[in-house]
Amino acid sequence: MSSIVLKRTNQKMPVVGFGLWKVTKSSCADTVYSAIKAGYRLFDGAGDYGNEKEAGEGVRRALHDGIVKREELFITSKLWNTFHSKEHVNNTAKMQLKLWGLDYFDLFLVHFPIALEYIEPSKKYPPEWWGIDGTTVTLAKVPMAETWVEMEKLVDEGVAKNIGISNTSGSLICDIYRYARIEPQVLQVEIHPYLTQEPLLKFAKTLGMAVTAYSSFGPQSYFELGMHGGVTALFTHNAITSAASKVNRTPAQVLLRWAIQQGLAVVPKSNDPKRLVQNLAVEDFELSEADMKAISGLNANLRMNNPGDIDPRMAIFA
Amino acid sequence: MSSIVLKRTNQKMPVVGFGLWKVTKSSCADTVYSAIKAGYRLFDGAGDYGNEKEAGEGVRRALHDGIVKREELFITSKLWNTFHSKEHVNNTAKMQLKLWGLDYFDLFLVHFPIALEYIEPSKKYPPEWWGIDGTTVTLAKVPMAETWVEMEKLVDEGVAKNIGISNTSGSLICDIYRYARIEPQVLQVEIHPYLTQEPLLKFAKTLGMAVTAYSSFGPQSYFELGMHGGVTALFTHNAITSAASKVNRTPAQVLLRWAIQQGLAVVPKSNDPKRLVQNLAVEDFELSEADMKAISGLNANLRMNNPGDIDPRMAIFA
Repeated sequence: MSSIVLKRTNQKMPVVGFGLWKVTKSSCADTVYSAIKAGYRLFDGAGDYGNEKEAGEGVRRALHDGIVKREELFITSKLWNTFHSKEHVNNTAKMQLKLWGLDYFDLFLVHFPIALEYIEPSKKYPPEWWGIDGTTVTLAKVPMAETWVEMEKLVDEGVAKNIGISNTSGSLICDIYRYARIEPQVLQVEIHPYLTQEPLLKFAKTLGMAVTAYSSFGPQSYFELGMHGGVTALFTHNAITSAASKVNRTPAQVLLRWAIQQGLAVVPKSNDPKRLVQNLAVEDFELSEADMKAISGLNANLRMNNPGDIDPRMAIFA
Repeated sequence: MSSIVLKRTNQKMPVVGFGLWKVTKSSCADTVYSAIKAGYRLFDGAGDYGNEKEAGEGVRRALHDGIVKREELFITSKLWNTFHSKEHVNNTAKMQLKLWGLDYFDLFLVHFPIALEYIEPSKKYPPEWWGIDGTTVTLAKVPMAETWVEMEKLVDEGVAKNIGISNTSGSLICDIYRYARIEPQVLQVEIHPYLTQEPLLKFAKTLGMAVTAYSSFGPQSYFELGMHGGVTALFTHNAITSAASKVNRTPAQVLLRWAIQQGLAVVPKSNDPKRLVQNLAVEDFELSEADMKAISGLNANLRMNNPGDIDPRMAIFA
């Protein structure tokens, strides 16, 4: 498995990882265990995904069975919006580590550049967007700079080897680089052929920040949530299926390959053991320049994950 | 002349103002004087435009001649990128006031959310993007929060009645609102039919921030600089000319009307006395809903003023 060498630590981040968003809690430990057996080394979790304990069980079972060593794994997690203040970043990261049953994260990201009112984990965890009552989004006045200082301390303390940001765009990235003692090493953002984000990728490259693309299959994950019904699925889009038939691969493999061939990392998830293996096999073929271009040509600036759709005060992509 | 009532001060900002970018230094005083006589009450200047002294001469002549009173005018200026640090904001704003020969600005904006290395005004003024040598862009590590605190002090001191931001997007606006003691009252951004920015406008409305659209004529100003040669001029675009003929107005008037009919303020400039008067006359006609929609339909996310084109580290719009 190829990897991207991260700035500062020179740690290697595998280009294909396993994304834990929407991985069913009840089967999560088994899924993670199987994924490790199948060859996955990177797991992309988050406090918000609600399955860190179960994912950790899968990891620890694999460690116990001697399938991998801890240092061969790359475990990512993310800080949720309700924990941005200086009182909460450190405790929350350590609570998340405890759920995983691990000593450190390889990468810890600020999930969104959005601060929400603190919610006591004993009252609701994961806290999600809508507060205790499940209906009211309450913004918190915690500047990103305050959160970032605490993220840096996680590195100092060894809680996280690398730190980064997610769902963050140009003007705020510029600002973070003005005050960061430890620069973000990874940017995780939504990228797929309907949202190619070339300017952001070019910017990240200039800064030496590795980029992980999420939602590589585009609207697919959102169809499952009943959203974005009007859009053509990428899996059945002619540009993808025709490229797939040329290389004798599945549309999913083509979508992942399109990303990594641009130098990005990807974190697909699958609950299906066969597809889980297929998603790893994207390094033994290449898409032609013409097909890469045709796929990129599908760009429609179509964003699936936009907090501004939840509440207009969170229009971070406006 | 209609106006937009600004939050906090309830001051009225005229919806049509006179933009001073690229107004020739030698004729600037006369142009401003004539514009006031023609009915202009808002002048949109900036340290970077290099004509504040001359614009001020025009203003003071008009005041002296009793054409207007100071309180009937609305004078805007902007802080340049090289003056973002806490040592320089206050001195620079006062130096700019002195150039104008005025006691206060009605509105003072952070020109770009980009901090560049300080350049002593005695060495080069306006300092522009490229440093003393004219070739090297040197970023400065001054966070936006540091600059904003100083902007707020300008209000405390009466140097500026209102403060705001320019060329700033979603994620950084969210952050400014997390630490602002005095919230930005105005956002000035590039908006024209090739760059309609609906999500940003909706966001500003949610926040109660007035929006001034600049470059209302789209690529026009940039053609003059020899840029963006491949684009169809809005003045000759069918969607604009057909709307213009229906209301018996010029394409320029239609473009300004399209903006103010959306609740925006505009700051066109003209060195031509006839067009200068025409640009003011955009309140006595209305564009049909169909024409508004057709014009907005030209959106191509085509941005003329992007510092990322000057230096990839300044990709504030990525």
